[in-house]
Amino acid sequence: MDAAWLEEIKWTADGLVPAIVQDFASGRVLMFAWMNRAALAETAASGRAVFWSRSRRSLWRKGESSGHVQYVRELCLDCDADAIVLRVEQQGGIACHTGRQSCFFRRLSDGRWETVDPVLQDPAVIYGDSDR
Amino acid sequence: MDAAWLEEIKWTADGLVPAIVQDFASGRVLMFAWMNRAALAETAASGRAVFWSRSRRSLWRKGESSGHVQYVRELCLDCDADAIVLRVEQQGGIACHTGRQSCFFRRLSDGRWETVDPVLQDPAVIYGDSDR
Repeated sequence: MDAAWLEEIKWTADGLVPAIVQDFASGRVLMFAWMNRAALAETAASGRAVFWSRSRRSLWRKGESSGHVQYVRELCLDCDADAIVLRVEQQGGIACHTGRQSCFFRRLSDGRWETVDPVLQDPAVIYGDSDR
Repeated sequence: MDAAWLEEIKWTADGLVPAIVQDFASGRVLMFAWMNRAALAETAASGRAVFWSRSRRSLWRKGESSGHVQYVRELCLDCDADAIVLRVEQQGGIACHTGRQSCFFRRLSDGRWETVDPVLQDPAVIYGDSDR
């Protein structure tokens, strides 16, 4: 497979690129993560979002343990070729490991972070193990 | 001013946090940038997006030279407290230094990055100097 499109990306010194995940239908920003070359190549080939877990130092196939797979509808690159947007169909309507729709569930309000999203499913129910 | 909300953020070793900018009305992801503590504090205080330019090593008051100011309607923090979403009103409808609405104007299509957004205004017209 010709991977010229992968060569165009300006990877960080650690070989990563920031990835913004957006719900295709609602436009809600669901999460922010990082990808390495293998994660992005697999994402494009499989149509399912795959990230690089910096804490676990391994590929992170989103939804592997939670079932909250992200089917990629669009992959976009920015002007500097150093950031990616994935527009996805979020299985289960839950992207966050806390059981919320989006990881960005805190909003600055009167000088404090206010939680504005409900927990849709108990993380203990979602996970046998961890899928962050 | 009490800055306890700033303390909650997990800054990188370089003292930065990734910032995703989204159009408040359309939901379009407009750009991706970085903020340091001063940039985020000024953003919250002024209601206008301020970033940290890693290349220029200085605060970058978005729109200072282009007029394409971003008025912040919402500031959101993610579950790990290490990424920010700004939902903004984009003055001029142009966020990108190339004169396009969004910096994410390239979409992966059949193994190549296809430009899918028109240039709305010639960058030479927008800038006397640079505002990236």
